[in-house]
Amino acid sequence: MTSSVETDVALSAAQAAAPSAAPARREADDPHSPVARFGAKAPLKLDAGVELPHLQIAYQTYGEPNAARSNAILLCHALTGDQHAASLNPVTGKPGWWDTMVGPGKPIDTERFYVICSNVLGGCMGTTGPASSSPVSGQPYGLDMPLVTIRDMVNAQAMLLDHLGIDQLLCVAGGSMGGMQVLQWAASYPERVFAALPIATGARHSAQNIAFHEVGRQAVMADPDWRGGRYLAEGVTPNRGLAVARMAAHITYMSDQSLHRKFGRRLQNRDMPTFGFDADFQVESYLRHQGESFVQRFDPNSYLYVTRAMDYFDLAADYGGALANAFRGSKTRFCLASFTSDWLFPTEEARTIVHALNASGASVSFTEIESDKGHDAFLLHEPELFAIARGFLDSAARAFGLPPARKD
Amino acid sequence: MTSSVETDVALSAAQAAAPSAAPARREADDPHSPVARFGAKAPLKLDAGVELPHLQIAYQTYGEPNAARSNAILLCHALTGDQHAASLNPVTGKPGWWDTMVGPGKPIDTERFYVICSNVLGGCMGTTGPASSSPVSGQPYGLDMPLVTIRDMVNAQAMLLDHLGIDQLLCVAGGSMGGMQVLQWAASYPERVFAALPIATGARHSAQNIAFHEVGRQAVMADPDWRGGRYLAEGVTPNRGLAVARMAAHITYMSDQSLHRKFGRRLQNRDMPTFGFDADFQVESYLRHQGESFVQRFDPNSYLYVTRAMDYFDLAADYGGALANAFRGSKTRFCLASFTSDWLFPTEEARTIVHALNASGASVSFTEIESDKGHDAFLLHEPELFAIARGFLDSAARAFGLPPARKD
Repeated sequence: MTSSVETDVALSAAQAAAPSAAPARREADDPHSPVARFGAKAPLKLDAGVELPHLQIAYQTYGEPNAARSNAILLCHALTGDQHAASLNPVTGKPGWWDTMVGPGKPIDTERFYVICSNVLGGCMGTTGPASSSPVSGQPYGLDMPLVTIRDMVNAQAMLLDHLGIDQLLCVAGGSMGGMQVLQWAASYPERVFAALPIATGARHSAQNIAFHEVGRQAVMADPDWRGGRYLAEGVTPNRGLAVARMAAHITYMSDQSLHRKFGRRLQNRDMPTFGFDADFQVESYLRHQGESFVQRFDPNSYLYVTRAMDYFDLAADYGGALANAFRGSKTRFCLASFTSDWLFPTEEARTIVHALNASGASVSFTEIESDKGHDAFLLHEPELFAIARGFLDSAARAFGLPPARKD
Repeated sequence: MTSSVETDVALSAAQAAAPSAAPARREADDPHSPVARFGAKAPLKLDAGVELPHLQIAYQTYGEPNAARSNAILLCHALTGDQHAASLNPVTGKPGWWDTMVGPGKPIDTERFYVICSNVLGGCMGTTGPASSSPVSGQPYGLDMPLVTIRDMVNAQAMLLDHLGIDQLLCVAGGSMGGMQVLQWAASYPERVFAALPIATGARHSAQNIAFHEVGRQAVMADPDWRGGRYLAEGVTPNRGLAVARMAAHITYMSDQSLHRKFGRRLQNRDMPTFGFDADFQVESYLRHQGESFVQRFDPNSYLYVTRAMDYFDLAADYGGALANAFRGSKTRFCLASFTSDWLFPTEEARTIVHALNASGASVSFTEIESDKGHDAFLLHEPELFAIARGFLDSAARAFGLPPARKD
């Protein structure tokens, strides 16, 4: 299907240096990641009803596979995440998005497990997305890239696992959109998923969540520099629109309480308001910074595609309207967690999944974690979440026949 | 101070017809409203530390004053409201924003009370705001208009009441930003407010609320047609940015439950998603409509000014950090209401006010109304709110010495 990982990396770095790669610059943004390529002989059939004849998937691995290749854990990232779950992100220079959770001795212990994380289909960190070159035109896809779904993302990940020689995952884990992928994995490939750890997620996107995403998309598309999605070919970027989209979304990732605790009504280095439209309050300055830094690392069209994939996600609808049908007969063991102050994916959404799993006879544990940090709690220092993940993985590993964790 | 109401109306209509009035078109948008004008001899001193030498206030009245002028109720409108509380809005052609509450035989009974509602300072329906002509340049103020606060709005309303010959209000009532004005009225002019009815409001704007407003302002200011606030003079309008701002804000006015009940995940006239970026879901189409219709009736700079006024509102801070100090010794009787599903001004905010009123020894009643309609419940058909308002006003009217309501 494709050449070895090492060769792929070399190719990718060479492409990044070639002048002709400029229009698709985002595809080559991350020469540090191995890339798996799939050609026209193994096209990905998309839910949109078309085939993607050329697919590349950028990924990272942490730890080593054991001889039986039975210690693999797949991490699924959220909307604006990427494959750098536990390694320095080459674009931001910051630790990976799940650095709190994944690493040597951490709950997802890379001394014990072989951890894989790939950039999602439609993303902009090396996996095929709207900023990638279309094999037809040689220009960035833009809106000519077909829309993708959470199931398409999961199917692409399954191709990557084939490529890596992993038949069955010890566990698939992720939060938010990552949790949607976990649920889709368990539904689409039950025999490949021994354990599933979906966090702060839902089996469908709610009307309110769709509404917030639509605001973000409209903000991007309202920016004249979006150019009907052809901005890369035209040498501009709708950064202002994307920054506004990120600001609106960022509010939904935090709780009212955490915003209050962090910023309250504190003014920015002043005792008095300025009576102007500069960032007077600290919370304004914080939000503007979130918007400005986001546009440095994310492709605006990718934002449209990936938010759309989340909006379309409705696992019950794909199984005749009954979520339990998605898991009927599943032998996967599930562990769910939600956070009390998460209003994007409130506990009620997790309970719906738990009820469906119970109805389908699946093995499931569920914890609502007390936290005032809102939706983003799954990315932050949450000792209760760490303890749950560690305990669940340890138990799953034993049941899967792995040797017990080494006690030093 | 100014000529009679009738003359003002005539002047205003004539101005609207004059070609030279074009740049300040929004100021003359509503020739149907009486306008009170205040000149340089009675300037409004603003919290920003400057004086507004020329002020005009557009207003509506409903019902008739009694001989003692003791049956007056002032209504304070919310962020995007106007003086048309109970009459057909001349811009939208729709009933006024509080048509459910105000009218003959309604809870705020215009057969019994003399009801006054004015467009707020900084607004765009005839009261001086950033779209008004600057007396210095003759051009629309734009950002040369000084910033205004909730207290400035209330001080302008007090000038209007002087103009109308109303010394003391039977009641001042309003929801959301209208409720902020009610609280400010009670704090600034306790002797002029016999009863106060603040609904779905808070004594300060929270960090989350400031954050959402900042997103809206950034959306407006990110639109290249905003032109640093000079769009009126340059013949353009940042409608795309303002529409995005409205969409984001509109989500905060509804509850998750009401969005779910109204739209759920229903698709727009189709059985299948389109796999495109058109409005696929009904909730998307609804939001887009909200954005598009809003820009027909609201001035983008006004949106910046009025949201800023709300953000600055922090009544406790103005009284040495203790909210009770704002009401110390007050003889005003208060009635508060909040809604269970209002997450913009949750019940906790109302409780903070109630506690302060109790601490200051004021008379207060408070009801949390069960509703799934979110913040906008105060504008909708809420029989419990109607009953509360009717009972409170009836009791206040009797205590104020008005004859009992006529029973037909």
